[in-house]
Amino acid sequence: MTLSKPLRTVGLLGGGVIGGGWAARFILNGIDVKIYDVDPQAERKIGEVMANARRAYAKLTLAPLPQEGKITFVATPEEAVTDVDFVQESAPERVDLKQELFARASRAARPDTVFGSSTSGILPTQLQRDMVNPERLVVGHPFNPVYLLPLVEICGGDKTSVQARERAREVYESIGMRPLMLQKEIDGFIADRLMESMWREALWLINDGVATAEEIDDAIRFGAGLRWSFMGTFLVYRIAGGEAGMRHFMAQFGPTLKWPWTKLMDVPELDDVLLEKIVSQSDTQAGTKSIRELEKLRDDCLVAVMQGLKSVGYGAGEVLANYENKLFSGATPAPAKIDQPIEAQRRLITADWADYNGHTNDSRYMQLSSEALDAFFRSIGFNSDYLATGRSFYTLESHIRYVNESKVGDEIVVTAQVISLDEKKVHLHSVMSKTDGTVVATAEHIYLHVDTNLKKASPIGKELLVRLEPIAKAHAKLAKPDGVGRFVGQSVK
Amino acid sequence: MTLSKPLRTVGLLGGGVIGGGWAARFILNGIDVKIYDVDPQAERKIGEVMANARRAYAKLTLAPLPQEGKITFVATPEEAVTDVDFVQESAPERVDLKQELFARASRAARPDTVFGSSTSGILPTQLQRDMVNPERLVVGHPFNPVYLLPLVEICGGDKTSVQARERAREVYESIGMRPLMLQKEIDGFIADRLMESMWREALWLINDGVATAEEIDDAIRFGAGLRWSFMGTFLVYRIAGGEAGMRHFMAQFGPTLKWPWTKLMDVPELDDVLLEKIVSQSDTQAGTKSIRELEKLRDDCLVAVMQGLKSVGYGAGEVLANYENKLFSGATPAPAKIDQPIEAQRRLITADWADYNGHTNDSRYMQLSSEALDAFFRSIGFNSDYLATGRSFYTLESHIRYVNESKVGDEIVVTAQVISLDEKKVHLHSVMSKTDGTVVATAEHIYLHVDTNLKKASPIGKELLVRLEPIAKAHAKLAKPDGVGRFVGQSVK
Repeated sequence: MTLSKPLRTVGLLGGGVIGGGWAARFILNGIDVKIYDVDPQAERKIGEVMANARRAYAKLTLAPLPQEGKITFVATPEEAVTDVDFVQESAPERVDLKQELFARASRAARPDTVFGSSTSGILPTQLQRDMVNPERLVVGHPFNPVYLLPLVEICGGDKTSVQARERAREVYESIGMRPLMLQKEIDGFIADRLMESMWREALWLINDGVATAEEIDDAIRFGAGLRWSFMGTFLVYRIAGGEAGMRHFMAQFGPTLKWPWTKLMDVPELDDVLLEKIVSQSDTQAGTKSIRELEKLRDDCLVAVMQGLKSVGYGAGEVLANYENKLFSGATPAPAKIDQPIEAQRRLITADWADYNGHTNDSRYMQLSSEALDAFFRSIGFNSDYLATGRSFYTLESHIRYVNESKVGDEIVVTAQVISLDEKKVHLHSVMSKTDGTVVATAEHIYLHVDTNLKKASPIGKELLVRLEPIAKAHAKLAKPDGVGRFVGQSVK
Repeated sequence: MTLSKPLRTVGLLGGGVIGGGWAARFILNGIDVKIYDVDPQAERKIGEVMANARRAYAKLTLAPLPQEGKITFVATPEEAVTDVDFVQESAPERVDLKQELFARASRAARPDTVFGSSTSGILPTQLQRDMVNPERLVVGHPFNPVYLLPLVEICGGDKTSVQARERAREVYESIGMRPLMLQKEIDGFIADRLMESMWREALWLINDGVATAEEIDDAIRFGAGLRWSFMGTFLVYRIAGGEAGMRHFMAQFGPTLKWPWTKLMDVPELDDVLLEKIVSQSDTQAGTKSIRELEKLRDDCLVAVMQGLKSVGYGAGEVLANYENKLFSGATPAPAKIDQPIEAQRRLITADWADYNGHTNDSRYMQLSSEALDAFFRSIGFNSDYLATGRSFYTLESHIRYVNESKVGDEIVVTAQVISLDEKKVHLHSVMSKTDGTVVATAEHIYLHVDTNLKKASPIGKELLVRLEPIAKAHAKLAKPDGVGRFVGQSVK
């Protein structure tokens, strides 16, 4: 994206939790910052936010970030905004304090430098009151942690120019954010009004002894909160309305507006005008997507979010992990038919496995093979009980040949064949095929059995050999699969 | 988990969106269901929910699900509950209708069969009024889609026994859910009170022309909604309080309770008693985790959620993808120093990459190598512009050797070396090392240049060779890396 004007240096007024978050986002995007903060601890605190942000970005993306911007701490607001390309204010939430800060800073900055305020709820018309060139003041309200959450609400005051709003939009978009342009100036803007309403209800629940802080949080994060990470209230309710959509939902749940389901009993009258407004806005939002398509999208997002959280082992991800552990802990039946390669796994190719060609990413075939052979190992009795005895298999090496393409939506069947077995090692071969029989890849792996305490090779346990040896014997009678024992390049030279 | 009593068959009263979701969850967990629903379309509709649920579970988990339970449609509520191990009611939200249903069904079920009601807000004391053995009625309030969202609120009425609540808990836990045990009976329970408060505020925003349905949804899903998928309001605010925690947050934001940030102006008095209650409950919730630890946990969850959503290409995941595309689209500088293997990538090993031994999962080394060589290809000018000309590289085969262990938190440096280059093929070798120089794995890959329209091999583009040939020439002078050209098993035999 090309900016209408350069963005090389940003002046930051305030460097607390929010100001530090802005500093991190700008710096990681290659932009220099000058920070003014009265707190003598500001430099240390921002250093800690920067460390968190660097750590998060290292996990967030493999894309090449630009070289980090420079950070300079200055002693006055004037120094912070002199000759900068944008200003972001994140001072404490006091109107008089912010007004004075903007008045002073506006006299020192270039006359066309746009100012964004991080205020959670103070009106921009109040903030721009004493400024020189007040038309360049917008609210640019971010969410914590600023370096990760994409939302920023952009709200102008009475004197704000269209140009200032557009400049703020391009600045925030250029550092990976998602601006929301507010049509009206209102206390708390949109997001904080929504959050505040829920917060006040939550305080009532604690006040009245109905629930604890932890129970209230659990009521969010194991339920509606999972959906809110990708769809808001209206789209979620549209789906809940089923095939008849939003009108049906409103007909069904409209009456509950009068029910004491919250202490917020001052509700708008759900007359035909409001109803039509909601229904038509919901139609616009859904666009051409049917309820069935929205359901699939919702489910894909929920699956992705829960799997993501499983990787952290927290919240709904912990629930999923426990559920899977329970499923895995059941005694796995031995393979029924062992005179052929054994079907070890079936798996759908999901969207996140596609590469830039639209095909399954090559490294995913290794994952397919590896996961399928894990399943094969479970079927010979290699499970958490066995691991608990201090014995395991380590993979020594793997060779994989990519034979045909597969793509998102294909189901891949993986079969396992024992090539050789000795006291401490097993050599397995896998074939990955589509359900029409087309082979997409083949792989071979050598596994070494180890004593995990001594960290050295050890004989494979008898309890595994009971199942593994008969398979190895049966498979010894099969033809050696094409490709086994080749070196890389042999097949293509 | 072992259940206190068997759970083989469940009776379902009502098979709409919620009842169908229950059917799917029970069936996918191997439990038979008998469904009573007056809707002649019920069988078709439940079939569609089942199809969605099967599709979602295929993506959700590779753990072995039990064989699916059987589904039977019956003509009366009595048939649905006869000789079943649990009953779940999901009829329309009318008190009289539900009371009659529970009264009839309770006479046909075994006297100790526990009944769960899916009601969003009707009190269990009302629901159990006309039942035989009313002590076995609980509310078990789920969230849509029932087959995916873990939350279920369990709430008893005046006559409900402890045993019934515990039975409901074990039933729901056994099918992968996360019960929340309510201490008090209250209209709307906890989750719907919170959702309803936000919903009412949202209706005001539409009514007053402040925002549209889509803008309101965006204000949630790009900001606070991302956090709510793993942490609720209280833990999020505790972190916002910074080092001083919840007391500081309340001191800072307590006064805003009096501000018109929502139309919910009837708020509890934030006196010392309520303040102490909130602070001490927040302390209990956080346990021994410091603010710094909570921040890291929050960031890890946000990264995981956004990466998950990126795989679907929706919401905050779409924002991240656009941001990365922008980063990737910048001209990649050519490698500076080409007389040695070229550093192509650095990457942290994250928790989701660990296998059952606590080490990096073997298949992830292939991903490491593959991603690093993608970066190498970008540095020779292979980018989206080049792809747009209908030319690409396909991987033909790979060989990987696992030399040492790495674990979560290790940073892995990957270098790339050109082994050979001809008109249509390039053979690359990668070395994956820890920052202390320990080699953890090596890999080699053969890439074939293809015309993606004709789907056949084609000469590598001149614009790539300008950078690639000098590297190939320089690397031809290097020693052939250990392991190149070996077949699997050669090094261990």
